[in-house]
Amino acid sequence: MDLTKIKSPSFLKGLTEDELEVLAFEIRRFLIEELAVTGGHLGPNLGVVELTLALHSEFRSPEDKILFDVGHQSYVHKILTGRADAFKTLRQYKGLSGFPKVNESKHDVWETGHSSTSLSGAMGMAVARDLKKQSYHIVPVIGDGALTGGMAFEALNHIGHEKKDMIVILNDNEMSIANNVGALHQALGRMRSAAKYNKAKQELEWLIKRIPAVGGVLANATERLKDSMKYFMVPGMLFEEFGFTYFGPVDGHDIKALKDHIGFAKKTNGPVLLHVITKKGKGYLPAETDEKDKWHGVGPYKIESGEKITPEISGLSWSKVVSDELISQASFHQNLVVITPAMILGSKLEGFQNKYPERLFDVGIAEQHATTMAAGLASQNMKPFLAIYSTFLQRAYDQVLHDICRVKLNVIIGIDRSGLVGADGETHHGVFDIAFLRSLPNIIIMMSKDENECRDMIETSMQYHQGPIAIRYPRGNALGVEPKQHRQQLPIGEWEVLSKGEDVVILTFGPTIALAEEAKVYLAQYGIKVELVNARFIKPLDETYLKNAFNSGKPILTIEEAMLVGGFGSSVLEFAEASGYSNINIKRMGIPDQFIEHGDVEYLLEEVGLTVANIVQEVQSLLPTHIKRVR
Amino acid sequence: MDLTKIKSPSFLKGLTEDELEVLAFEIRRFLIEELAVTGGHLGPNLGVVELTLALHSEFRSPEDKILFDVGHQSYVHKILTGRADAFKTLRQYKGLSGFPKVNESKHDVWETGHSSTSLSGAMGMAVARDLKKQSYHIVPVIGDGALTGGMAFEALNHIGHEKKDMIVILNDNEMSIANNVGALHQALGRMRSAAKYNKAKQELEWLIKRIPAVGGVLANATERLKDSMKYFMVPGMLFEEFGFTYFGPVDGHDIKALKDHIGFAKKTNGPVLLHVITKKGKGYLPAETDEKDKWHGVGPYKIESGEKITPEISGLSWSKVVSDELISQASFHQNLVVITPAMILGSKLEGFQNKYPERLFDVGIAEQHATTMAAGLASQNMKPFLAIYSTFLQRAYDQVLHDICRVKLNVIIGIDRSGLVGADGETHHGVFDIAFLRSLPNIIIMMSKDENECRDMIETSMQYHQGPIAIRYPRGNALGVEPKQHRQQLPIGEWEVLSKGEDVVILTFGPTIALAEEAKVYLAQYGIKVELVNARFIKPLDETYLKNAFNSGKPILTIEEAMLVGGFGSSVLEFAEASGYSNINIKRMGIPDQFIEHGDVEYLLEEVGLTVANIVQEVQSLLPTHIKRVR
Repeated sequence: MDLTKIKSPSFLKGLTEDELEVLAFEIRRFLIEELAVTGGHLGPNLGVVELTLALHSEFRSPEDKILFDVGHQSYVHKILTGRADAFKTLRQYKGLSGFPKVNESKHDVWETGHSSTSLSGAMGMAVARDLKKQSYHIVPVIGDGALTGGMAFEALNHIGHEKKDMIVILNDNEMSIANNVGALHQALGRMRSAAKYNKAKQELEWLIKRIPAVGGVLANATERLKDSMKYFMVPGMLFEEFGFTYFGPVDGHDIKALKDHIGFAKKTNGPVLLHVITKKGKGYLPAETDEKDKWHGVGPYKIESGEKITPEISGLSWSKVVSDELISQASFHQNLVVITPAMILGSKLEGFQNKYPERLFDVGIAEQHATTMAAGLASQNMKPFLAIYSTFLQRAYDQVLHDICRVKLNVIIGIDRSGLVGADGETHHGVFDIAFLRSLPNIIIMMSKDENECRDMIETSMQYHQGPIAIRYPRGNALGVEPKQHRQQLPIGEWEVLSKGEDVVILTFGPTIALAEEAKVYLAQYGIKVELVNARFIKPLDETYLKNAFNSGKPILTIEEAMLVGGFGSSVLEFAEASGYSNINIKRMGIPDQFIEHGDVEYLLEEVGLTVANIVQEVQSLLPTHIKRVR
Repeated sequence: MDLTKIKSPSFLKGLTEDELEVLAFEIRRFLIEELAVTGGHLGPNLGVVELTLALHSEFRSPEDKILFDVGHQSYVHKILTGRADAFKTLRQYKGLSGFPKVNESKHDVWETGHSSTSLSGAMGMAVARDLKKQSYHIVPVIGDGALTGGMAFEALNHIGHEKKDMIVILNDNEMSIANNVGALHQALGRMRSAAKYNKAKQELEWLIKRIPAVGGVLANATERLKDSMKYFMVPGMLFEEFGFTYFGPVDGHDIKALKDHIGFAKKTNGPVLLHVITKKGKGYLPAETDEKDKWHGVGPYKIESGEKITPEISGLSWSKVVSDELISQASFHQNLVVITPAMILGSKLEGFQNKYPERLFDVGIAEQHATTMAAGLASQNMKPFLAIYSTFLQRAYDQVLHDICRVKLNVIIGIDRSGLVGADGETHHGVFDIAFLRSLPNIIIMMSKDENECRDMIETSMQYHQGPIAIRYPRGNALGVEPKQHRQQLPIGEWEVLSKGEDVVILTFGPTIALAEEAKVYLAQYGIKVELVNARFIKPLDETYLKNAFNSGKPILTIEEAMLVGGFGSSVLEFAEASGYSNINIKRMGIPDQFIEHGDVEYLLEEVGLTVANIVQEVQSLLPTHIKRVR
């Protein structure tokens, strides 16, 4: 069928299981073909084709609420709810989001991007439903990876306690983002081999029935035994312990079995957990046989070969620059340990893992634990490097504050994906970290202008023993500058004047240096002399430089690819105020007080006004009238 | 013995169990007598007297690392590590902290205050120990309440996976802060009644031995059954599922049993969980029979009667003002639901709970879940009021950002304990929330000048449907103003000019209004006319007022009992910059860039410079020379 003709998932109710199988095939083909052009989360979505079909066959969306945890596995849902024709614009500026969006469809009842939120959301909905005396199903769909996030456990604990009606679909693909870690994963493994336990259960039941024949000694205990049996002899006892009725495991690619199990679940009171085993990448050989989870999220590829069509790159990614340097530092510093919350691939840590497997810890989706574990390491004079995306560091704000900064522990926080990230969109932009870290005492925050300086920052962090130090680095490729042979320590809080100039000072750091550089060159043609400063220390500021600049009377422009509210520019305003300068001409550029959608970073920069043209304009607005010479 | 003579816990190794019992009695008496004068966390500490004695008898601190989760149960540990003589200064300014402090003793190896961090800290230490090929015990002591915090689960999951040697002491007092909630609590209840399961296990084992007599059908399955048995038939299977060896439950007031069990645990490889059942308040009748957990933390009391010696109070607490208003609003607004993370008592929600039990949700120590559950409720047009301490809201930063602000959901966040909190100290001051919330788009942040305005703010929030709205309120008593009959809505972003004045503007909110008022009266004697503004909207600012003030050329002083970095004052600087005013004379007062210790709030305010005298001085420094007339 023509998938773009689908308006609503209600048509599924009329389909036979054979017809659903055919539809599953067509959806797979559609996904493989569309994502070959646009890229996207292919693996996760190929894994949930039958599951999503079964869900939309058995439930009535949007009356029944289906919540996709993390949300990058909602493509099939998007197709079934009338958005197939928008896939050409997937994850592009003003195009279809890669995540559920309330504004896109009434069927997207829960917005996500970060993991492990669906159970709490579902609990809130369940309370609302019951207080309003309404009657509908609430169906969070959560992966085995997301289940390790602490807040999912907080929710399980509460839902089980309150005994709310809810059908949790555990989408267990035995491999969330990269190989899953944790004891929970092992417990799920035991559940997967449920046949064994079911057998044991049957055998015990048979035995108990025969107990009177065995002897009177057990007669009194029979009932008690049955009680314990009921309790003990289910494969999903972990969930039963939490007050859930456990169903499964069921083959997530068998539509009939899925529908049957969902049918059982619908008839069950209280919280149910349906354990569904799926195969990531199912139906597309390169993705299905992908042991390293490289097809989790992909760029464009050739369908036949699975070969990736990546644009020619002129350098290493920032993540790789950092991880290579960590490998190098690890040989000198026995106390260097790297921690990542489920981002070995994303943060390009495979090399470190291969070389120092005993010094790399992938803790799973568990940012809070990762952060406080780093504190524990530092308390014993180890030097932990916490490699974490900016957006996920948000999950560990209190741990950074309470466990690291307050105690002044020597943790290095490598803030990957700082700044705008592009296609992943508003849930993933790393634009808040400056604002939320800067108000924490004792922390140092840096961002480098290029790879060599980034390596120097890691060197500096390794030699610094006065407390936590954060190094921001962006998503994507580094500049490709010639590698320096030697590392050097940067004096804490010292900026670098990239070029002298008398008319105006631009303070900026990281990727916006390039924009400022371009603006400077442009302005120079008109005789406007910009002093361009690499403000590589975001905290502490270079107070000596600033005081001199204030005294010189030069106007100052700050530029950052981060939230303006509470950002770096604000810290310059604060310093001017605190040091008694009340009439310095300071202007700030950065991201305004709003969430930023998905799309290519260049479009997003345009949208928020971080462009060369705007820099030129802001500089001119700062100049005394007699030297405004452009245009 | 004279407890103040204790220098180190090593003397315990020479004591018989009878002598330890005597010591336990003496420690209890000491705690009851000392805390009768100073106040403090009596209940939790009376509960762990024998446990702490057993731990320090069996382990060698500080080589072995004992980590107290939350930390308010570390008083016995403090006595045994040579700090008994400091109890006269407990929780007082420059006195003994109520929590473990690295600076106080080498035996305090892990600083806490917030819950659920000890397992992650212990994991970091275990990795450090093993990489350094050292050999010592790591012993986190965690309560049943703290175990519901998500990060504890993240840690359990990782520790179980890595199979690190560690002895987790689960201090299960069946009542953490107030009655515990959650499915986990019920699971623990089942474990407590372990006798039943042990009986069942014995019976089943007996049965299995006789299986050949029953018939050949089961012969093949015997081994498999035994396997399952081993796995299923332990009371702590929840922990066994996570890869821990479970011991217990053991009576936490039986020193011999405790020492024996710790002995077993020490001989066991891999992670062990020792389940200890304690009684909060043990040995002091008023505390032991306290069903409402009112002896968790107390002020001074009369030892004989248990009567509290509380200073005369001149009004309701802020928490009570808010909860009373919520009761009143709940009768008009069927969609109002209150959520608290284990703080029914602290946030004075008993009244609401009694009146609307089905509309109050205590989710346990689970701030992340509480926050996102509120989002789920709001997504279904309910009006959730999340009552949460400022310091604990830190745990839910990402949930506020990602699940509430980003989606513009109508959640009311009642930020209890905003500002300095006093005796609980640096882990508990509510001074970061303005900085971390202000940079989030879509949120409104308010703080009232008095009870009536606080009620109006709740009214305003109930009538506001454009997104999240936060209401800050301090710890302690409100002002005691005469209650107004009617509620009124406050125009969003409109400040209130409390008194007109031509010389200088003071912008402040909440408790610092009183300081500014006093300074204003003082300055008036010298003819200096202060315009005092109740800046009750911290975000958005009153832009109309500010522009007028900027245009008037009056200097501006901002005052806040919150971090200066990224705070309210910074937002005024930002607005001046953003609206093109570059030479306004603005000065900010607030909390400097450092963590603030424990002690009476008045001392702390003095320490950070938030005093009437300093306000007077700052005002004068802002004035043109010709009107500086004071002193």
